[in-house]
Amino acid sequence: MPPSERDILIALHHLPGLGPQKWLTLQHTIQSPADLLDWPTDKLIKSLGQNAAQLFALWRAGEQGWLGARLNALARWLESDGHHIVTQFDELYPPLLKEINGPLLLYVAGDPLVLNLPQIAVVGARKATAAGAKTAHHFSQALASGGYGITSGLALGIDTQAHLGALAGAGKTVAVLGCGLDKIYPARNLALAAQIIEQGGALVSEFALGVKPEPGHFPRRNRIISGLSVATLVIEAAMKSGSLTTARQALEQNREVFVIPGSIYSEVSEGCHWLIREGATLVYKPEQIAEQLGAQLALFDLPEPAIEVNDELVPKHKKLLQLIGRERVEFEALLALSHFNLSELHQALGELEMLGLIASSEQGIERLFAGS
Amino acid sequence: MPPSERDILIALHHLPGLGPQKWLTLQHTIQSPADLLDWPTDKLIKSLGQNAAQLFALWRAGEQGWLGARLNALARWLESDGHHIVTQFDELYPPLLKEINGPLLLYVAGDPLVLNLPQIAVVGARKATAAGAKTAHHFSQALASGGYGITSGLALGIDTQAHLGALAGAGKTVAVLGCGLDKIYPARNLALAAQIIEQGGALVSEFALGVKPEPGHFPRRNRIISGLSVATLVIEAAMKSGSLTTARQALEQNREVFVIPGSIYSEVSEGCHWLIREGATLVYKPEQIAEQLGAQLALFDLPEPAIEVNDELVPKHKKLLQLIGRERVEFEALLALSHFNLSELHQALGELEMLGLIASSEQGIERLFAGS
Repeated sequence: MPPSERDILIALHHLPGLGPQKWLTLQHTIQSPADLLDWPTDKLIKSLGQNAAQLFALWRAGEQGWLGARLNALARWLESDGHHIVTQFDELYPPLLKEINGPLLLYVAGDPLVLNLPQIAVVGARKATAAGAKTAHHFSQALASGGYGITSGLALGIDTQAHLGALAGAGKTVAVLGCGLDKIYPARNLALAAQIIEQGGALVSEFALGVKPEPGHFPRRNRIISGLSVATLVIEAAMKSGSLTTARQALEQNREVFVIPGSIYSEVSEGCHWLIREGATLVYKPEQIAEQLGAQLALFDLPEPAIEVNDELVPKHKKLLQLIGRERVEFEALLALSHFNLSELHQALGELEMLGLIASSEQGIERLFAGS
Repeated sequence: MPPSERDILIALHHLPGLGPQKWLTLQHTIQSPADLLDWPTDKLIKSLGQNAAQLFALWRAGEQGWLGARLNALARWLESDGHHIVTQFDELYPPLLKEINGPLLLYVAGDPLVLNLPQIAVVGARKATAAGAKTAHHFSQALASGGYGITSGLALGIDTQAHLGALAGAGKTVAVLGCGLDKIYPARNLALAAQIIEQGGALVSEFALGVKPEPGHFPRRNRIISGLSVATLVIEAAMKSGSLTTARQALEQNREVFVIPGSIYSEVSEGCHWLIREGATLVYKPEQIAEQLGAQLALFDLPEPAIEVNDELVPKHKKLLQLIGRERVEFEALLALSHFNLSELHQALGELEMLGLIASSEQGIERLFAGS
């Protein structure tokens, strides 16, 4: 049986030097990755380079070789629970990441659905101040319990507090790594990584298994962090720091950037202040982010949070959840929109509330996305 | 000899209840304040109110009365060196203050010319943090030595540091009071007030002699602080503080507002952060203010700093200073603009540099406004 398009893509991804840019160029010359199975070797060499072309030619000829061995190792890894590959051919590939021409594929450990949850990247200095660490935890907890995924880089300092805050908020969190998922870095955060998966989040990387963390990987890691997220929150960032790069990428990607200010005498606030002067939004309360993004998400018609609707729900419930959407809705509006009668609506809302899927207050009815 | 228009304005200013608003209304009904000398008493009562009208009627009849006694006391005060009144009829009345419908007149102790210097208001909390005090001093010193007047309110905390910083920068500073100039408040700053005058600055108030500081006066005082200034710099300000009011007034007056950020856990930074979210400009270096205002001043065609050109200057020097203006100019441009020949220009620039009026560098030639 010939390899599928997806298999070919995965094989291509393992070839040295085939990043998203080269892939884009390649895409213009082929209808499908399967075309490459028929290309003469000299054409392959012209497109992929000598080294990559030879590895690919060997593999398509059915020989084990270097590429075959790596793909076999990958196949074994994929046999474990919660190990996934999400390619640009897969529906699960996050649209926000596609928008910025993200990597051909992502390695995922944990629940890949979480990548489609509206996420906020929380980034900052490894050498965070105590106040910065507290802020990262507090904001991430509040935003996660409000239904946002928290995306960060599993580094020490702000990243760690962001993940911990999200977990404390009973929310989901995504850690993007600058290495293969079998080489988790830093080792001090191995337990945190496990807990992230445990609680329904995910570890993500564009780097193949076995790839070690290297300084050159972190800009690419940062690009995924901001690319996955509707917004980036920068807590503490020195000038010329990785966090600042992430934030600049977010601005270039036309994503919202929120920034926590600090003392003008603190080095780890200088990058933050620079960003605010460049147009990023100063925030000092988590609500300010939620408020602004509420409007934003509606504006850009972004996908609903990818939290699965309970299968036990009857169509009536599903219809109501759809109507409520991401915005708080008044009871009267819901009555008109749903075409339910008064007692039908009361009963259905009561059931949804019992299931922890909505909350009602005098201000109206809203969906609860976190931990639901 | 009948009283002059100016005398009548000063008399009117002393009448209870005649603020800028009432004066504006009155102006629509008269050609000149002298008209009021001929108005029948019932017409005066209708415009000024019973009490004020009777005081005014007595005074215009040449009787001493309450108003006459106060004007005599004022006349005695004006006999002292450096005591002035600047009315809306005087050329010295600051145009920026006129623009926002400032008070009918200002009492000035010190050099009234300083009110026409481009000024930056520096305001903030009385209960400043050590970092805030340091920032106020540092920024005021840098801006004052760059030729800007520093305007503040002589209060403890940020205000005091702003005045002290300006003095340390060998610059001029203006203290606007919420009381009569013979009732300087707080008493702890009496020596500072004297030094402000000593160094060519001024104390200013819209309140008549003998008026004590009262809480209700400070919003009016703050309005003058921002109204005199091309920009307001807020260092530390709690929500609902007077400094925040000053900054909001500055924004309403379409003046630039610069803000120093701080910790999100500090109460005296909350107002600052609020202002930044409202559109004020975050700054963390004095140069950022100077840069932005340089462009601003050129744009609005505001008066050049009112530092007098040395009388010993020959016309050639004056012409060059005019050409250099507020912006750094390249030597070649100056050569073309001045129509001087090469050696003439070199000599004149050398003389101006010796006089401390300009500085040349590889980037060009610029005027030095401070202490020149």
